[in-house]
Amino acid sequence: MKAAAPSADLSRLSLNHITTRRWSVREAVEGCLRANIPWIGLWRDKVAETGLKESARLVREAGLEVSSLLRGGMFPAVTKAERMVRLDDNKRAVDEAATLGTDVLVLVCGPATDRDLEAARGMVENGVEQLVPYAAGAGVKLGIEPFHPALMTERSVIVTLSQALDLAEQFEPDRVGVALDVYHVWWDPELYPQIARAAGRILSLHVNDWLVPTADSLLGRGMMGDGVIEIRRIRQAVDAAGYTGPIEVEILNPEVWNLPGDEILALVKERYTVHV
Amino acid sequence: MKAAAPSADLSRLSLNHITTRRWSVREAVEGCLRANIPWIGLWRDKVAETGLKESARLVREAGLEVSSLLRGGMFPAVTKAERMVRLDDNKRAVDEAATLGTDVLVLVCGPATDRDLEAARGMVENGVEQLVPYAAGAGVKLGIEPFHPALMTERSVIVTLSQALDLAEQFEPDRVGVALDVYHVWWDPELYPQIARAAGRILSLHVNDWLVPTADSLLGRGMMGDGVIEIRRIRQAVDAAGYTGPIEVEILNPEVWNLPGDEILALVKERYTVHV
Repeated sequence: MKAAAPSADLSRLSLNHITTRRWSVREAVEGCLRANIPWIGLWRDKVAETGLKESARLVREAGLEVSSLLRGGMFPAVTKAERMVRLDDNKRAVDEAATLGTDVLVLVCGPATDRDLEAARGMVENGVEQLVPYAAGAGVKLGIEPFHPALMTERSVIVTLSQALDLAEQFEPDRVGVALDVYHVWWDPELYPQIARAAGRILSLHVNDWLVPTADSLLGRGMMGDGVIEIRRIRQAVDAAGYTGPIEVEILNPEVWNLPGDEILALVKERYTVHV
Repeated sequence: MKAAAPSADLSRLSLNHITTRRWSVREAVEGCLRANIPWIGLWRDKVAETGLKESARLVREAGLEVSSLLRGGMFPAVTKAERMVRLDDNKRAVDEAATLGTDVLVLVCGPATDRDLEAARGMVENGVEQLVPYAAGAGVKLGIEPFHPALMTERSVIVTLSQALDLAEQFEPDRVGVALDVYHVWWDPELYPQIARAAGRILSLHVNDWLVPTADSLLGRGMMGDGVIEIRRIRQAVDAAGYTGPIEVEILNPEVWNLPGDEILALVKERYTVHV
């Protein structure tokens, strides 16, 4: 008798483009088609290289669904003028998301400009508040992504799911939610209660792994199964909170990027099946 | 008219020995005497090199006060036998603290042995529970130190002040408290409410700084003023919670260690005066 194979249901699997960073949008779309991966998560810089309309056409004609666009945010800035520039850029990101056919824009909220964390948190709050009506008009939801506290000075003053929810809950659930990345939240002693609290607000789920030792907290993310995160348990908790959407595999790691793209996708599918 | 000089009250200043890691206990004690630093925080490995009784004699005869002993903890282990070995080692640490003349043993609670964080947290809780009666008998308090989440896999599954307090509050305030290090807690959106909650339980305060960029989260700690932490604000919040004890300068950084010891102490005093 053969042992039962692990579930190979890939219907929720999404390739976050940065996992195959050397590929263009066209190459990533073609790679997903070859690998039967139904979703793709796109990045603005890659989309800009290919062109917005061309990128939208490529994914549409391939029959891929776009799980999210990364990234808006980066609200804190020293001057009001610069904060307005950032807000305008976020509005363009909203438009791009709509054009690409996704209703989720992930917000990486930005680091502080100086030692004053409360001021920075206020700028984030203010930025989201100003962006919401514009995003609503375009039918795009904003997914606040809490970042690992190790990345506080580089990426985000929003560092816990609780804090992200405190902000999201100031708005309607169909306008502002959270984007969960296991890498950023796995350490949190409040993780599971906060995932339950997030029911109805989870817009995106990213998976990868925390490697030991941790060489680089920005670019040292591992393939699922190579690290210590209880990925399946977190995914199941997110499911239990009612999220049934795509699951993006997002690996920021030069060692992964240096593999041939099709090998990366084969590994993604294998590890997704076993560990997610 | 001369501008008022910053306060040069060094009565709470403590040299955590690791800041002058190249020094022996004798050299650190003599350095503190030359620099008029009234307190010293000791490490078990350095004390062992010099000998426990000799270390105790050196600090006592120098008239220095010992602010704390580092470190107990490291409770999670795979087997019950190994956990008993760890507990015995913690009891020796309690005895050493008493011999050295300090009533504070700082607990670095230990990383998980595998992916199961809850099991590891349970082992920490169990370890502290078993250690408390022994420590009480020796008149030594246990200071649970929450560690930065970036160090979760290397040092501690206790990663927030809230979590440390949840554990400490299971015991009498004169038995178990918390050891606060600005490096480990500065990022926490709950920091100030949790410091207020910690009133009566703060046993130790460590200062240093978070450098940007962050090259190494274990050994990349900065001298106060070189990074982004609002050190004075945190110190004032700790004062407002009723803590009037020593403030240890604890810098884990090879670039600092490579300076001549007396230069390190001069810098410590200058930065303490301006930034703490």
